[in-house]
Amino acid sequence: MKASMYEGNQKIALHEIEPTEPGPHEVRLKIAYCGICGTDLHLFKGGLDYRIKNIPQAIGHECSATVDKVGSEVTDWKPGDRVVVRPLDYCNECVACKAGHSHVCANLKFMGIESPGAFQNFWTVHERTLHRIPDDLSLLHGALVEPLAVCCHAASRGEVKSGEYAVVIGGGTIGLMTALVLKYRGLKVVVSEINPNRLAKVQSMGIDTINPKETDVLEYVKNWTNGDLVDVVFECSGAQPALDTVPWLCHPRGRVVLEASYPHPMQYFFREHFMREVNIIFTRVYEAVDYEEALDMMSKNPFNCDDLISEIIPLGKVQEGIETCLDPAGKVVKIMVDCQSQE
Amino acid sequence: MKASMYEGNQKIALHEIEPTEPGPHEVRLKIAYCGICGTDLHLFKGGLDYRIKNIPQAIGHECSATVDKVGSEVTDWKPGDRVVVRPLDYCNECVACKAGHSHVCANLKFMGIESPGAFQNFWTVHERTLHRIPDDLSLLHGALVEPLAVCCHAASRGEVKSGEYAVVIGGGTIGLMTALVLKYRGLKVVVSEINPNRLAKVQSMGIDTINPKETDVLEYVKNWTNGDLVDVVFECSGAQPALDTVPWLCHPRGRVVLEASYPHPMQYFFREHFMREVNIIFTRVYEAVDYEEALDMMSKNPFNCDDLISEIIPLGKVQEGIETCLDPAGKVVKIMVDCQSQE
Repeated sequence: MKASMYEGNQKIALHEIEPTEPGPHEVRLKIAYCGICGTDLHLFKGGLDYRIKNIPQAIGHECSATVDKVGSEVTDWKPGDRVVVRPLDYCNECVACKAGHSHVCANLKFMGIESPGAFQNFWTVHERTLHRIPDDLSLLHGALVEPLAVCCHAASRGEVKSGEYAVVIGGGTIGLMTALVLKYRGLKVVVSEINPNRLAKVQSMGIDTINPKETDVLEYVKNWTNGDLVDVVFECSGAQPALDTVPWLCHPRGRVVLEASYPHPMQYFFREHFMREVNIIFTRVYEAVDYEEALDMMSKNPFNCDDLISEIIPLGKVQEGIETCLDPAGKVVKIMVDCQSQE
Repeated sequence: MKASMYEGNQKIALHEIEPTEPGPHEVRLKIAYCGICGTDLHLFKGGLDYRIKNIPQAIGHECSATVDKVGSEVTDWKPGDRVVVRPLDYCNECVACKAGHSHVCANLKFMGIESPGAFQNFWTVHERTLHRIPDDLSLLHGALVEPLAVCCHAASRGEVKSGEYAVVIGGGTIGLMTALVLKYRGLKVVVSEINPNRLAKVQSMGIDTINPKETDVLEYVKNWTNGDLVDVVFECSGAQPALDTVPWLCHPRGRVVLEASYPHPMQYFFREHFMREVNIIFTRVYEAVDYEEALDMMSKNPFNCDDLISEIIPLGKVQEGIETCLDPAGKVVKIMVDCQSQE
């Protein structure tokens, strides 16, 4: 079978490898689609080499699939079942796992980074990673569940409530999907973004925008909220100029959710948080409940999933897809890889 | 009567002024003792001039007192009652006040900064600011309630639970009192501090210490917690080198409480918080419940209050007291001003 493997040095290529037989509690999946994620871009540029044991390695983690073969102890799944994968391999023994927070396991292995990923014809995974795709959701759209679950988790971490005001900073894939989740949950949302292509995309999906190069975000927020300031900010840009504005946007006891991962130390003006008792909330990946929420939300069609899919490319073109995503023009939201099409 | 007034330019001097008649809901207090606070040091150096309307102004806000005269509508208080003052003047109309968080009122006036303070023979305040001192607590010790309430509030904001592991960074007055509150609440506590005088004081009150100039704090924490890392960190130093160590000390889903006020932007490595979903919690002043907890705690004598009082000085020596506190030797914990003694 074919697998699209990261070779290091900004190179990804198709390799011929053997499919893996499922162990007793494992399931072999025939991968349908797998989206290219910001994490894949970071990995492509070498930023995660310290976490990858064996190069070359198949990457990718935002997939939909059908069950191909099940291990001897698997009772919940059968060949033909349509599934998505929650790509977390946790230890079940650390203080986080014991407290029920296995998604931030102290020994967490992220499938597609610390172990092989989904850019393959077939992928063998533990049965506990699987969620069933509802009948009314296509395999193509199912591959959007993973990033949407990231945003559902962020919204839950931010303890958002219907009717609240929210600013989302950054209109890339995660910023846009966060805004869609917040709108679905009944919040009033505006996305702050400087890239014209991203601004147009966010607007086309029915979300208000501001461009901080043209509009003072704090003044906008004051007018919008009758002087009260917003209840919650979601910072998805990872950019220093965005962090420089965040501390002033929330009213006292509001919340700031830092959704980006910030690979380097950042400057931050904590005093405004101190003055307002505005906590800074961090959010990483998702829990099972976030997958269920994302699947349920997609079944209800609150937005057109096709609007999020910019292009579908074959398994042999992952490198080109990543390079397109890296283009600062920001013309794409999600590129989907058809993992059964080699060319 | 006499009042110790801030004149700007690092000068504080005694002034002869008229006592203020209490309005209908006000109470005139005969001030017994008032502690010198870190905020007073910051104010003395000019850092809060932007918040003081009329200079010269009496400052000070950590007082105990007896009621001298009550306004026409006051029914809960009578002359001779022994009280402490929660020095917060809030608007009752902003989004924070309406949500029950008047201590972070968007229009908060802090008495002793935005309005005259307690370094006076008599101080006239709103009746809603008062808490009764229990019979078994002296007026001298009562003046410790305000900073202790700061630490009770911080502990509550940090959602601490008996049995948890906590690191307190900084062994100044607030760090030491935070550690005392945490120990009282059943946590296992260590204070990290570099100043030898402060280290000795913290140890003398039965709290374990580490000196990060001699001991690697992360290694200490790993050994102390059998590799689990601590549940909560209280950062009370305000120093950049301390912030550089904080993100690594907590286990996933632990909490970091930034108790200092950080007048300038700081460098911070958010990635470790992202990886662990460790929220950053901010804590400012106190609520009524924190005053009640501090009063109740002091009645139970979990530590010797006299150990926290380094010196008692007369009202005319506030400037000298502040200068002693500013000495980096760190030999004093709390200097008390006897507000009825002029000399």
